[in-house]
Amino acid sequence: MFVSESMYELGSKRSAIRELFEYGKKRAAIVGAENVYDFSLGNPTVPAPDCVNETIRELTQSLDSISLHGYTSAQGDLETRQAIADYLNNTYETNFKADNLYMTMGAAASLSIAFKALTSSPDDEIIAIAPFFPEYRVFVTAAGAKFNVVAPDTKNFQINFDEFEKLVNKNTKAVIINSPNNPSGAVYSEQTIKKLADFLSKKSEEYGTHIFIITDEPYREIVYDGVEVPYVTKYYNDTIVCYSYSKSLSLPGERIGFILVPDEAYESKKLYAAVCGAGRALGYVCAPSLFQKVIAKCVGQTGDVNLYKKNRDLLYDGLTELGYECFKPDGAFYMFVKALESDAENFCEKAKEEDLLLVAATDFGCPGYVRISYCVDEDMIKRSFKAFKALKEKYAK
Amino acid sequence: MFVSESMYELGSKRSAIRELFEYGKKRAAIVGAENVYDFSLGNPTVPAPDCVNETIRELTQSLDSISLHGYTSAQGDLETRQAIADYLNNTYETNFKADNLYMTMGAAASLSIAFKALTSSPDDEIIAIAPFFPEYRVFVTAAGAKFNVVAPDTKNFQINFDEFEKLVNKNTKAVIINSPNNPSGAVYSEQTIKKLADFLSKKSEEYGTHIFIITDEPYREIVYDGVEVPYVTKYYNDTIVCYSYSKSLSLPGERIGFILVPDEAYESKKLYAAVCGAGRALGYVCAPSLFQKVIAKCVGQTGDVNLYKKNRDLLYDGLTELGYECFKPDGAFYMFVKALESDAENFCEKAKEEDLLLVAATDFGCPGYVRISYCVDEDMIKRSFKAFKALKEKYAK
Repeated sequence: MFVSESMYELGSKRSAIRELFEYGKKRAAIVGAENVYDFSLGNPTVPAPDCVNETIRELTQSLDSISLHGYTSAQGDLETRQAIADYLNNTYETNFKADNLYMTMGAAASLSIAFKALTSSPDDEIIAIAPFFPEYRVFVTAAGAKFNVVAPDTKNFQINFDEFEKLVNKNTKAVIINSPNNPSGAVYSEQTIKKLADFLSKKSEEYGTHIFIITDEPYREIVYDGVEVPYVTKYYNDTIVCYSYSKSLSLPGERIGFILVPDEAYESKKLYAAVCGAGRALGYVCAPSLFQKVIAKCVGQTGDVNLYKKNRDLLYDGLTELGYECFKPDGAFYMFVKALESDAENFCEKAKEEDLLLVAATDFGCPGYVRISYCVDEDMIKRSFKAFKALKEKYAK
Repeated sequence: MFVSESMYELGSKRSAIRELFEYGKKRAAIVGAENVYDFSLGNPTVPAPDCVNETIRELTQSLDSISLHGYTSAQGDLETRQAIADYLNNTYETNFKADNLYMTMGAAASLSIAFKALTSSPDDEIIAIAPFFPEYRVFVTAAGAKFNVVAPDTKNFQINFDEFEKLVNKNTKAVIINSPNNPSGAVYSEQTIKKLADFLSKKSEEYGTHIFIITDEPYREIVYDGVEVPYVTKYYNDTIVCYSYSKSLSLPGERIGFILVPDEAYESKKLYAAVCGAGRALGYVCAPSLFQKVIAKCVGQTGDVNLYKKNRDLLYDGLTELGYECFKPDGAFYMFVKALESDAENFCEKAKEEDLLLVAATDFGCPGYVRISYCVDEDMIKRSFKAFKALKEKYAK
């Protein structure tokens, strides 16, 4: 083929989620938008905190054009990195410095850069824990490493260590974790993180290697009922934090986030240099300048997480009452529901007949489940129950 | 090594240009900023046109947060792409549609994506024409292709076709051109583009392949004295345009640009799909949303190019009068000057003794020359002549 076959495939295979979304728009035109219940997309529905647009307006008035829109250093504005380090240190009792941080264009960039920095041989393996965000496979493969998946713990959606054990070997370069989790909404407990740290320390020692944790945490601040999300660097030295402001500040289109390489990580200076190199090789010159400055001002703020919590409670109570088996999420804005048959795709097709748009979790590494995004309008959730009821009744026959 | 060796090297080897810049800041602290003549960096010094900040403020007031800062489609906002297509069609009498365009995070992203999309085998070769922007080598190598360089035409800084001929073979996937050129400031004439098109058509036919032109043109609008920059798609079908608003709108830190795949290109739908796939694989989710909307409004505007022209004339006249052999640039904001000895690095060291910071063009593929960036303060140019004079006199002894 005259172009890269794998790139062509990636670009021409439409995402199932996006297709569902497009289908929903078509159905809305036929049956009316109020009669379509689209739970497919994970787009924040809570507005950015006022600080964001206020800071943007202020900066366009107070700062000269060159300082505002010019190149920053490749690592990112010192002031921004310092503000983030200060916020993290105050919040998690850590000891980060500005130089532990590398600003990126959101979580996808953070992950792509981290995988590229770590992959030193085609034998390298990177492990994800099901259920997992499907683009991990794309980014790991693009970085030239092998992608392995730990089968899910469908009871608590923590980590299935028995399955994990089978996959770790001397080629294991890193494990990617995502808590609060997309798609399950689970938050890894402190116990899970401690067990993971012990497990990887033991394995690293066994193989004479350093197995890194790459912790992907765009949903860190979106948690309910005071649940705590342990800061992983405090439990395991060889940790790389990948963060994005897409969800916490509701800025998914602006592409702003960071990679954090703590001093405690093995050869952290070398690792940080490899991160800088990978960012450069992938064509990331610097994270968007204006939004770096917005972060310096708004770090630590979030949109109104309570709106998501209200939706979660509404949906969880409603579906449970209808007899669905739901995993009650502690964070993020997804609910994991067991399909009413083993073939989740088929279940989703039947849901579609009721104009209920759900995503089968097969691509997330968790067959038999569906993901319901509840970052939607509250009224839509209320209206959807009659469709969920009808769907349930189909299986009662 | 526990990290990727090549990424580590890329990240730890500081760019010579940036080192020079840091050196300049240190010297300024010692001898006074007014006595250091830093011609090293290619940062726009002309402010963004008013439209940019006005549009930003307006959007933060008129558009809801989700529409303003939310994900756009991976290709980019339809409205933005349509506005760009309309502008190009009106300006260059072309026939582009929104679907020919893919929004990117600036030129580095455009190029990285284009190289990744095209590279289908490790035997693939991509050719640059000296003098060339050194990061091309980084991006081509990262995409997995071989990087070859055509020796320069140091008379007119057009294309040395005799040298070019030697490098083209059945593995040649693409040729990257950059006009107006960084570092020479040359603009490829219509005659050059026609000759290039003929040459590549002939070669493609000879090998039964399609050799693409990748045209990197962030300086397209920065030209002087009415010089025209031919729109390459009108001369050669298999063209991929990589554009960035970094220079025309003075927005280098915001990372916004596009890739254009014309319908006339071989299997253009497949090529466009491969571009989308490469964007996805490299972790580019969408170009920054707010700035996509700014582009929709401000496309076609530029900062005040006359300020660069004034600098060019001042510098060219001054240096020529002092006896330097300069290539008079028709565009961009760089001037190419012949070093006063064959070793340009050594010449730059001697310049440094006069606190004149010039960049040796060896890494640009053009030994014996230096690049002088004149996107600087006009007064600095005036003050610098005494240092240029002293430098000249060193060689007169």
